[in-house]
Amino acid sequence: MSARLLNGTEIARQVRAELAPRVAAFSARAGRPPGLGILLVGHDPGSEIYVRNKGKAAAELGIRADTERLPHTATLDEVLAIVDRLNKSAVHDGILVQSPLPAEMGSDAEQRVFDTISPAKDVDGFHPVNVGLLVQNRPHLVPCTPLGIIELLVRSETKIAGARAVVIGRSDIVGKPSALLLLHRHATVTICHSKTVNLPAVAAGADILVAAIGRAGFVTRDFVKPGATVIDVGINRVTDPEVARRLLLSTPQRLADFEKKGSVLVGDVHPEVAEVAGVLTPVPGGVGPLTIAMLLGNTVKAAEASIGTR
Amino acid sequence: MSARLLNGTEIARQVRAELAPRVAAFSARAGRPPGLGILLVGHDPGSEIYVRNKGKAAAELGIRADTERLPHTATLDEVLAIVDRLNKSAVHDGILVQSPLPAEMGSDAEQRVFDTISPAKDVDGFHPVNVGLLVQNRPHLVPCTPLGIIELLVRSETKIAGARAVVIGRSDIVGKPSALLLLHRHATVTICHSKTVNLPAVAAGADILVAAIGRAGFVTRDFVKPGATVIDVGINRVTDPEVARRLLLSTPQRLADFEKKGSVLVGDVHPEVAEVAGVLTPVPGGVGPLTIAMLLGNTVKAAEASIGTR
Repeated sequence: MSARLLNGTEIARQVRAELAPRVAAFSARAGRPPGLGILLVGHDPGSEIYVRNKGKAAAELGIRADTERLPHTATLDEVLAIVDRLNKSAVHDGILVQSPLPAEMGSDAEQRVFDTISPAKDVDGFHPVNVGLLVQNRPHLVPCTPLGIIELLVRSETKIAGARAVVIGRSDIVGKPSALLLLHRHATVTICHSKTVNLPAVAAGADILVAAIGRAGFVTRDFVKPGATVIDVGINRVTDPEVARRLLLSTPQRLADFEKKGSVLVGDVHPEVAEVAGVLTPVPGGVGPLTIAMLLGNTVKAAEASIGTR
Repeated sequence: MSARLLNGTEIARQVRAELAPRVAAFSARAGRPPGLGILLVGHDPGSEIYVRNKGKAAAELGIRADTERLPHTATLDEVLAIVDRLNKSAVHDGILVQSPLPAEMGSDAEQRVFDTISPAKDVDGFHPVNVGLLVQNRPHLVPCTPLGIIELLVRSETKIAGARAVVIGRSDIVGKPSALLLLHRHATVTICHSKTVNLPAVAAGADILVAAIGRAGFVTRDFVKPGATVIDVGINRVTDPEVARRLLLSTPQRLADFEKKGSVLVGDVHPEVAEVAGVLTPVPGGVGPLTIAMLLGNTVKAAEASIGTR
């Protein structure tokens, strides 16, 4: 048995294609394109790549994307000042402050930034007002990765209503909002985490299993009910040859890549799960492309909602 | 086997006793008692009783409670005008608009009222900002019944961390916030609802079972793992003799009461569950008294937080 792999790149392309006429309609009506203001603090290599990809995807769709940069020595006040300026900007409908912020800014810096972004421009969906509206099932701007997970499930015709869904991970960014979206689509949802007793057995009850833990290859075949749909949210860079060889035993091509490059991206789901699951998202090329597509969708949505209010 | 009954009336008394010195300290410092503004629209008999009990409990604790009334013909604008006045009041720290509002006001009237109440005075915890803060595990004002459920569990020394908790019901008022509170205390939480497949089997996996459905005696013994802690949130008035006789077969004293009065209050949990559960909350006298105690706690908390800000 071998799982059907969901092609996130292709599904993201469909999502973007469906956004294109909305971008055109907004631009015609507003006399300007939807606009996304991105703030990048410091030089985290992962963040550089994310921000570049987001900016590129926006531009390809006709969305204006402006990236501002601050050095890693910037203060929180400097970040908040830029957020404040973007809040007031007439040409920016969405604001994205790339995580992580430098550790020196303090552990609550990110939440303070997210609290400061206007809920109407909060394309990450992290402001408490948007979180509350999601809970109350009248969502406006919803976190992008959970939206992408739903998009993958819907477009792969996975039945959500009545399904048993298990979400491993209870983060504000993925775990909790994913659980809420699945709940509102009438799944019976269980949220698991580091304190869950007998996690493999709980996970193995799932028709839909969402892995958002941040540990390479953590979800092994004993976590997975045969035929289940498994959504792998993790993106973990593995550089330890021993770990890479253990994880990539069943995918010799990827192992060869690792031996050449010295690093490889691996999800939270062990590749061996492909032998058990019915449907599986690959890493890379699964959830990741959807996250960016949903960010563009949120920007368009924020732009459309702004008409008549700004 | 017979379940230990949690005495909600006694636990609520303890909670109020612990609030008393905080009420005194606030009153001494602020030169006025904590204040709760209650608005009652129409003459729903249940609401009349709730409002009277809330006002009485507040007064006994030294909290000022003012009840305003509007006829059932009042408009939503009239309700919102009173909320606006209470938002600005210097002597009211909490605002409670008793549900349900008259159906004539429209299906979204309650949410519009809750959205209008200042988050700082939102002692019901229904404003999206407070809901979002709860999700992000930095709660300020949290819905009263879920808080009461946690209080019952903690004071009965039920272990929450690592336990499997199942919440039946996904309302904004009880189900979802209860699930979040249990999750943040490290339970593995499953939320069930009308679309859940094989509900009894899912419920029977629970170490902690929260029943918040609103259907008299719905949770029968096959829903309950032997020894589980069962929290019964439902308060259903039964007037059908056949239903009453079926539910009260094992409690002849209560059946006799029903035969005399023609009605009886029954929880969502069938009385036969007492033979299986380890711990059970009775109805009445379980969750109900805690809900009022936590409302008083929220009022004191809002009052304390207001010092220096108003």
